[in-house]
Amino acid sequence: MHARLGENSYGKSAIRLVKVVREGAHHSLHDLTVDVRLEGDFQRAHVAGDNAAVLPTDTMKNTVYALARKHDVHPPEAFAALVGMRLLEASPWATCVTVDVARHGWNRIMTDGHAHDTAFQHASEEQRTASVRSERAAPGHVEAGVRDLVVLRTSGSAFSGFPRDAYTTIAETRDRILATSLAAGWRYAATPADYNTTFAAVRQALLGTFASHASESVQHTLFAMGQAALEASADVEEIHLSLPNRHHLLVDLTPFQLDNPNAIFVATTEPYGLIEATLRRPSPSESSQTTARGSPPP
Amino acid sequence: MHARLGENSYGKSAIRLVKVVREGAHHSLHDLTVDVRLEGDFQRAHVAGDNAAVLPTDTMKNTVYALARKHDVHPPEAFAALVGMRLLEASPWATCVTVDVARHGWNRIMTDGHAHDTAFQHASEEQRTASVRSERAAPGHVEAGVRDLVVLRTSGSAFSGFPRDAYTTIAETRDRILATSLAAGWRYAATPADYNTTFAAVRQALLGTFASHASESVQHTLFAMGQAALEASADVEEIHLSLPNRHHLLVDLTPFQLDNPNAIFVATTEPYGLIEATLRRPSPSESSQTTARGSPPP
Amino acid sequence: MHARLGENSYGKSAIRLVKVVREGAHHSLHDLTVDVRLEGDFQRAHVAGDNAAVLPTDTMKNTVYALARKHDVHPPEAFAALVGMRLLEASPWATCVTVDVARHGWNRIMTDGHAHDTAFQHASEEQRTASVRSERAAPGHVEAGVRDLVVLRTSGSAFSGFPRDAYTTIAETRDRILATSLAAGWRYAATPADYNTTFAAVRQALLGTFASHASESVQHTLFAMGQAALEASADVEEIHLSLPNRHHLLVDLTPFQLDNPNAIFVATTEPYGLIEATLRRPSPSESSQTTARGSPPP
Amino acid sequence: MHARLGENSYGKSAIRLVKVVREGAHHSLHDLTVDVRLEGDFQRAHVAGDNAAVLPTDTMKNTVYALARKHDVHPPEAFAALVGMRLLEASPWATCVTVDVARHGWNRIMTDGHAHDTAFQHASEEQRTASVRSERAAPGHVEAGVRDLVVLRTSGSAFSGFPRDAYTTIAETRDRILATSLAAGWRYAATPADYNTTFAAVRQALLGTFASHASESVQHTLFAMGQAALEASADVEEIHLSLPNRHHLLVDLTPFQLDNPNAIFVATTEPYGLIEATLRRPSPSESSQTTARGSPPP
Repeated sequence: MHARLGENSYGKSAIRLVKVVREGAHHSLHDLTVDVRLEGDFQRAHVAGDNAAVLPTDTMKNTVYALARKHDVHPPEAFAALVGMRLLEASPWATCVTVDVARHGWNRIMTDGHAHDTAFQHASEEQRTASVRSERAAPGHVEAGVRDLVVLRTSGSAFSGFPRDAYTTIAETRDRILATSLAAGWRYAATPADYNTTFAAVRQALLGTFASHASESVQHTLFAMGQAALEASADVEEIHLSLPNRHHLLVDLTPFQLDNPNAIFVATTEPYGLIEATLRRPSPSESSQTTARGSPPP
Repeated sequence: MHARLGENSYGKSAIRLVKVVREGAHHSLHDLTVDVRLEGDFQRAHVAGDNAAVLPTDTMKNTVYALARKHDVHPPEAFAALVGMRLLEASPWATCVTVDVARHGWNRIMTDGHAHDTAFQHASEEQRTASVRSERAAPGHVEAGVRDLVVLRTSGSAFSGFPRDAYTTIAETRDRILATSLAAGWRYAATPADYNTTFAAVRQALLGTFASHASESVQHTLFAMGQAALEASADVEEIHLSLPNRHHLLVDLTPFQLDNPNAIFVATTEPYGLIEATLRRPSPSESSQTTARGSPPP
Repeated sequence: MHARLGENSYGKSAIRLVKVVREGAHHSLHDLTVDVRLEGDFQRAHVAGDNAAVLPTDTMKNTVYALARKHDVHPPEAFAALVGMRLLEASPWATCVTVDVARHGWNRIMTDGHAHDTAFQHASEEQRTASVRSERAAPGHVEAGVRDLVVLRTSGSAFSGFPRDAYTTIAETRDRILATSLAAGWRYAATPADYNTTFAAVRQALLGTFASHASESVQHTLFAMGQAALEASADVEEIHLSLPNRHHLLVDLTPFQLDNPNAIFVATTEPYGLIEATLRRPSPSESSQTTARGSPPP
Repeated sequence: MHARLGENSYGKSAIRLVKVVREGAHHSLHDLTVDVRLEGDFQRAHVAGDNAAVLPTDTMKNTVYALARKHDVHPPEAFAALVGMRLLEASPWATCVTVDVARHGWNRIMTDGHAHDTAFQHASEEQRTASVRSERAAPGHVEAGVRDLVVLRTSGSAFSGFPRDAYTTIAETRDRILATSLAAGWRYAATPADYNTTFAAVRQALLGTFASHASESVQHTLFAMGQAALEASADVEEIHLSLPNRHHLLVDLTPFQLDNPNAIFVATTEPYGLIEATLRRPSPSESSQTTARGSPPP
């Protein structure tokens, strides 16, 4: 039987890298998880069992550690690009290398009112992400992002005016808890002046909009968040947002002769709503059109 | 500022459904996790906060439970198609509905040498999957699969003849443990006569090839597995395989004056290799060409 | 300030050990997770930072791997005892060593109707456990067990006749799904003739009773299971059972004009009931007394 | 066969409770997981299947939600005591009720330099814990604590001077990363004036000592942390600490002609050291004795 090899890739995932940078007695901590993936001409490995073109994934891991010793690992976008370029060199058979870096957060422990030089507490599950896709002839595509950014708001979130069918039982509400674990990734059209500054600005735009937007639905707030991100940096040309809806259900206390004015909730994990969308910066010609739809004239 | 809404979807994930089917005193158990996702014209929800087109995800969940009461939930491909069609009806704004079903395995408990009628033990973490993407005008695309199928072999697996660079330290080996947690999904060109029979045949082709293929690399065995799947059913036109390499490292016992002839290993989870590829049934014209590459003439 | 050091221990946890045993072309797989823990006189390490008595936990890990090369790792009770004795020798400061072994299950892959010699599929999450507590002067206490044994029955399980107070809303039922993830550990008064045979007998007693007992509550079935285990082997003097109640909630389909005769359930994980108890073999004098309470005369 | 029922308990675990407290436009968030457990005379339920004394665990869950509506849920020690007292009332058959509360942390989102009134980001995985064991005739035992407090230090941590045997390969070091996920629980001899103040003081003592102690081993730092906790509040009579050693392994870069002066590490999860101890406040007579051992005179 004959079979045709289609899209294929191989690489190393979950490379755990911790780097300590010392400036005298003051240490900085960089805690990363790195994934690398190669695409290219690996036909003979699949079909004929010939490994002459298969740079070992163990070598990819070693490359990450060695480059981390020689170079800065921060900002993650730059380190991901560096690893990608080296792997393109190391594997002439690869046409494209993707490097994903997730940066885990640590805060300095406070002692006697000062941030400690060498002791840290793990921050939240939030991760800063960078993904760089490097091709041999072209500049890399750089995507920055966050994931596992768990946020919750207790006011200003509604869900009403939706269609009802035979299977609809949910009540309309003008006041509910809105909670999510945000994942967002944005693509840079141009390299920003400073990755860290731009990251901070986009992240704050996302957070601030989540916190304060007059929300008619998860979709509504997702779009406003994406819009704010595009506004926060002219270098961002596109952003993808994924907002799982972590439902908080109001507990029915009427059997106990108690009211429940949005006070007591059950936090649930299953099932969950999942709302996802990509927003793009419109071309000049599109711009006026979209405005018309987005903000209908009075 | 203006932003353009790109690809977007919404739905309900992780709907946990257990159905008991009774034939007299003999019960059958169907344990499913269902995810549904709608794509379509949801522009006004995002941009204007208008929910007139937003069928609630809670309704999607209710729909799954109600249809499960009215209809068979097995085979999962058929149930996924059924849920998809109903949601297309329920949401005129949707152009496409994707329904993913994962079926969890249970074996009957043996008592006195007989399979019990109403008592079950959870089988392995392996899940049978079905994904149906239904569009309004077209027949649904049906993909069947398995995931979390954890397998290991202790012989006949090699990795040698690979290129070495400055960062390569791994030794060549003609004998190693090969372990993976297989995920595979195959697309049907035509509806098979019986989803369960075809699923069983493809799954057995994957398992049997994993077990017995003379493996020069994960890629090599992945390709052979895909080829065997395409051979196992003429209705399969394409298969995607994902094989994380769960490395088992030989323990160095020489400090203790002990040899280790592939006897004692550490099972590791991080980092892991990740090998992925899609195989397609070649068109008649492609077929001869691929043969030439796949099996070079002597 | 002064502080007194109370109970303390140290050791190595989550030592992942895979051993391949070869009989010609037929291989056996032993997949274990081992935890070791020492108690003894480690006062100076805590109080004065003096490590002269602190055998490194890394050495404990090496010991496990080296002994696994030299000796059988099966049955796990014997291997746990062996590791414990060695660690007592290696650490004169230890008065007591506890070794816990969890054995992960693998089944041979079937090919052409035969069990493969060298290829395996991971079985369920069920683990066989062995815990041996060795003291210098005394024979070790041996406890065998299972954990994560996930079972479910669809008939013969009731819960009714319970007290109701102001916060009770649950309905009585004579027919519900009963599901749990069993953990059980039993202590041997005497070393059984064969650990594997006795393990299999006790496990089957637990499973068979779970499957067929006319259940009035989780407590009721737990007790019957424990009783069956004590009956299954005279060497078992005590058994502890832990049964989380994995609630399967009947879905209310009445809004959709559908009945639900115990057909459609939601499987939930939170919250869960948790029922635990220890059963002991009564001494001859106690025996008659317990009988009277357990089985009141007609 | 006869069996004797030994220790037994039952209850409800993983009750997820979120309470929003509103002071005008300013909201506070209390996110708790509650476990309750009853011990008492439940012999007839086990042996005879008689549920007359079995208050349903569903009722326990309802009780938690209803009491959360009527009363403060903060501090968790007080809420745990309240729930325990109610359950003792509700179940005359119970002799002892244990209520465990874990409080999940949330920080206010910052917008325009101000802490938002109604929007929050999930803090770290750290949880504040309270466990109250209430008996009918006696005042409850109150234990406060933290768990999953993940901390790491990059200087001032050594491990040397330990014994070596045939299986010891680890090198001595005067400089390593020390990382752990702390769990600690301390028992109050007397009710502190304010649970929150005392909790904060003890937690800060633990953190500050972890950060700055001149560490000869995990044991050494554990003891210093416990000592600092006992010093931080005279109401604490006993503290238990559990410190898994999350090993950070120095990467060997010599094959690449690179040194590694404690710069590049692999973060590992398996295996891990586990160091645990209880410290108690000595009675006056013990005090001098311990001093002598702990701080030998010059």
